[in-house]
Amino acid sequence: MITPVQPRPLRIVLAPDSLKGSLPAAEAALAMSRGVAGAARRLGHPAPDVVLAPLADGGEGTLDALLAAWGAASRSVACHDAAGRPRTARYGLSARPAGSGRPTRGVLEAAEANGLPFVADLPLDALSATSYGVGEIAARLLDDGAEEILLCVGGSATTDGGVGLLSALGARFLDRDGNLLPPGGGSLAALARIDLAGLHPRAAATRWRIAVDVDNPLCGPRGAAAVFGPQKGATSGDVAVLDHGLAHLARVLAEATGVDVVDLPGMGAAGGLAAVLVAFFAAEIVPGSALVADAVGLAAALADADLVLTGEGSFDSQSLGGKVVQAVVENAPATCAVVAIAGRVQLGAAQVQDAGLAAAFSLATGPLQLEDLIRDAGILMEETAAHVYGVFAAARTGPGVRP
Amino acid sequence: MITPVQPRPLRIVLAPDSLKGSLPAAEAALAMSRGVAGAARRLGHPAPDVVLAPLADGGEGTLDALLAAWGAASRSVACHDAAGRPRTARYGLSARPAGSGRPTRGVLEAAEANGLPFVADLPLDALSATSYGVGEIAARLLDDGAEEILLCVGGSATTDGGVGLLSALGARFLDRDGNLLPPGGGSLAALARIDLAGLHPRAAATRWRIAVDVDNPLCGPRGAAAVFGPQKGATSGDVAVLDHGLAHLARVLAEATGVDVVDLPGMGAAGGLAAVLVAFFAAEIVPGSALVADAVGLAAALADADLVLTGEGSFDSQSLGGKVVQAVVENAPATCAVVAIAGRVQLGAAQVQDAGLAAAFSLATGPLQLEDLIRDAGILMEETAAHVYGVFAAARTGPGVRP
Repeated sequence: MITPVQPRPLRIVLAPDSLKGSLPAAEAALAMSRGVAGAARRLGHPAPDVVLAPLADGGEGTLDALLAAWGAASRSVACHDAAGRPRTARYGLSARPAGSGRPTRGVLEAAEANGLPFVADLPLDALSATSYGVGEIAARLLDDGAEEILLCVGGSATTDGGVGLLSALGARFLDRDGNLLPPGGGSLAALARIDLAGLHPRAAATRWRIAVDVDNPLCGPRGAAAVFGPQKGATSGDVAVLDHGLAHLARVLAEATGVDVVDLPGMGAAGGLAAVLVAFFAAEIVPGSALVADAVGLAAALADADLVLTGEGSFDSQSLGGKVVQAVVENAPATCAVVAIAGRVQLGAAQVQDAGLAAAFSLATGPLQLEDLIRDAGILMEETAAHVYGVFAAARTGPGVRP
Repeated sequence: MITPVQPRPLRIVLAPDSLKGSLPAAEAALAMSRGVAGAARRLGHPAPDVVLAPLADGGEGTLDALLAAWGAASRSVACHDAAGRPRTARYGLSARPAGSGRPTRGVLEAAEANGLPFVADLPLDALSATSYGVGEIAARLLDDGAEEILLCVGGSATTDGGVGLLSALGARFLDRDGNLLPPGGGSLAALARIDLAGLHPRAAATRWRIAVDVDNPLCGPRGAAAVFGPQKGATSGDVAVLDHGLAHLARVLAEATGVDVVDLPGMGAAGGLAAVLVAFFAAEIVPGSALVADAVGLAAALADADLVLTGEGSFDSQSLGGKVVQAVVENAPATCAVVAIAGRVQLGAAQVQDAGLAAAFSLATGPLQLEDLIRDAGILMEETAAHVYGVFAAARTGPGVRP
């Protein structure tokens, strides 16, 4: 007589990033959970303990990941896009448990205001695009009582060094004749003086943390204008103007505050948005993926897990440099296997396994087009998770029921 | 202090089919072994015990798989292609260990003579294409002393019911006036009588086994002419002529031998090649994959294996109907996990796991073209095997060395 083995249920954490353009992180985690649960049922295994922990890297999807972790609903505020047209942006505020001693935290994604998609209907003007709307959201967070503001950057249409943002908080950026600069990075070279007399009263007292997903500096060949300007519509001439303007801004900020932002890693993110915040408010630059991992309690979830499935749209060398996959690997104990599932796996098995993962699999089931992968990402994620579960569980508990 | 776990080495069998058009089975197995060994080294695991058992389904690659299993070199013989032009074909003969009591076995792939590729330079003529060359190889095997002949069919250009084959062994197919029929299935309707007076003296005493990879009958809407005729150049008119001719041949054979081949499954393979052999020599129709699995000792290899990697070009519903993957599943004990790796995985995880596999993975690492998959199949197989090993071994022995 054969007695079926009934081992303890596997503990599996599902901690993907979003698959940009096709699958939000929460949906990716749900698809993984369907795949794992279906496979376990089919194979006659005990239902695994599954923990959903969708992540983000400080870019798109971060707001939703933190709202989910905080159990908070999103709020909205009227603001302006990078071209100065009115729009409504989402942002989030954590509840502060009474007596918890924790600060009230606010989160905003800069791209909710100055994102490229919202000006895609216009001829892109990299010189005049402004981050003013980002400052409008931040002002609302200050009004709402945020004691700590997490500003997520990325996907922006602007290259103005954060001058628009700080203007919305009440600062005035003036030329040598005392005139307000016109919006956008194209006018930065004329900056002579910054007047903070009208600054929001709570701006300087608040803790600012800026989640970046690149480590580019503000200026130069790896800077905000040279690397990201062209995708915002900057011609090579515009790039030179913007790069010169950002360098000039950095000098003015250094004279005014003693803080030199020009060489700080990450300062080139989102058109230099962080420059003014770092100089005036001592804003911290933090890796977005680490911050989100911390906010959702990833380390605790992984502590007694057997397997964690992570993933993203494209698993490449960037994934191991401050992105979600790296955060998962860093938070996984030695007893927990890490497997990545991605639309595209661009690293070899040697790189994947040397980095501490057990494996990485693509969603692709054969030759197909990117459009197919994007359209079917949900079901392909479910399927791939089912296969990965099948191998892992077969090794751990036996192959299961064989007909 | 942490003491590294040193479990017994995993035992892994590598038993792929060929990936048609890109990777012979032996190369696929070697690529898998490189992937598994590399991953084990990287992850700090004990080197696994690896057994290479490349398989075949009775079609292309079967000769090589059996030669490898027998430790025999291939032989060659002069013969003719389906259009009657001279060519040289490969075939194989097993050594007979003295006193072993085992028969001397011969193997030939029909397509070595009557294969479609060898007449691809001509306008295809489905009516006159002949299997005569296949009989020439068989005659040589009889001359060489084969006591058992394994005839692998598939990929043929012919639809002549094996009349060409038997002609090469000395039979004469005559019309009502006693004239020899012209070559090809187009003349079968005129068949009146079969003269076996000149038959090779050893033909009838030899055990014939015919490995087929389809279960189509000889005639009718699922028959040799209707289903496979068009890819051999048959017009719809040709299909009717050939189907009628094969049905007539079956009647003549039944009258001559008492054996009715018309409804036997598999008789439609290779243009009805088996019909004459079944009728006159009681040839057995055997699933090619099962025969090869038997010849390479698959069941013994899998008896104490932890994991078997199989695979093929396209993993689809046919794979579970008499193909290599099915043979692997059937030979794997309950303690051995089966994972398939294929260029294209066309079955869902539910079908895969319901069929007794733990998982199936594609070679694809993202959106790509079939040509890319074919060109890079070797390295992709190595990589995918490394990832599968990573997951399996992480579950069995721990994730390995994490930096």
